[in-house]
Parts: sequence; C-alpha cells; structure tokens
Amino acid sequence: MHASPVEVSLQAALDALSDPIRRRIVRELAGVPDWSRPCGTFSHLPVAKSTLSHHFAVLRGVGLLEQRDEGPRRLNRLRRPEFDDRFPGLLPLILTEPEDRP
Amino acid sequence: MHASPVEVSLQAALDALSDPIRRRIVRELAGVPDWSRPCGTFSHLPVAKSTLSHHFAVLRGVGLLEQRDEGPRRLNRLRRPEFDDRFPGLLPLILTEPEDRP
Repeated sequence: MHASPVEVSLQAALDALSDPIRRRIVRELAGVPDWSRPCGTFSHLPVAKSTLSHHFAVLRGVGLLEQRDEGPRRLNRLRRPEFDDRFPGLLPLILTEPEDRP
Repeated sequence: MHASPVEVSLQAALDALSDPIRRRIVRELAGVPDWSRPCGTFSHLPVAKSTLSHHFAVLRGVGLLEQRDEGPRRLNRLRRPEFDDRFPGLLPLILTEPEDRP
C-alpha cells in the first residue's frame, strides 16, 4: 500500500527514518531522477533481499516512496515534495547525513 | 554526562526523539523558561520514576537537555539553540506535534 505523507504521524516518520539502511535508500533515490532506479539495483546494500523488501514497505507506509511495476522491474520514486510539505526540514537532515556516519 | 549537540550523530538524535515520552518532555520544557522545571515536576508522565530518569539521561546524551542541581532539586534547560544549529528543523517538528497524536 502507498500512504500519503499527510496521513502519517511524526512517530511513524521517525520510526521509518531511524534505520540507517532506510536512510541510505532515501539518499540514493534522492540522487537520481524519479523512476530511474528499479528495486534490483539496491542489492549492494548489506541486507538480505527479504529485509530490503521490508525496508521498501516501511518507506511506502510513511509516504516516502512510490513504486510502480514496469514489466519485470519495480521502479521507485522518492515522494520528496509531499514529504517535505508534511515534515519540513526532516528530509534535508537525512540527505545531508555523511554516508560514513550511520 | 552532558553531550554537546555538535558531537551527536543523526542516528542518536532520531533514536532519542523516537520515544513519545521524551518528545513530550521536550515540548513541556520548550513551554517554560530555562531552569524553571525541576525533574520532580514530571511525575504526571505515565512512566516509572526510573524510566523517567533514563529518558532524562538519553536527552542529555544527545545534547538536548542540560541539568544542574540546586539544593535538593535538579533543574532542567532545553538546549534549543544548540540543537537547532546541529539539526535544523528537527526540534520544530517535535514542538508542533499534536499532544494527542503520539
């Protein structure tokens, strides 16, 4: 399911972003055009495939991630403006976090 | 120990603020002058005294809280400008969170 950020509580947003792998997914998506990264391109992250699917689901659940299927690929888009409207200032903190300081 | 917010990682800040009781302590302190609230005035919060002490320690550990003893009372100050400098935008989200939506 895709949640809209307007329905999301601050608790849920903080819980979602308290995981360093989820913050890294967010940063990687912020650095590329919308819909350009299929889920399969995140296999370099040091977690099992099932864990990665869980992380994507959590990000969808707080309205940070939109996904659509295109043939065999599941493409991703960071819902950046929507999330910024709901939680101003939060995403910039995540995006400027040094990658070596999880 | 008192940490300075400049030494604090985003991970630690998010972990500290992911607890609704800690966010409530922060909001209550933001609404009163510095050093006006002793720890004893937080006994209305629905947690054990030992848990409350732990919450204060966590907030000190991420540089959000400064404490000083004055006779038998331990007074508190929210380190708001210091924390705002380190994590711009984060505290405003906490302070504007509706109290009935933990």
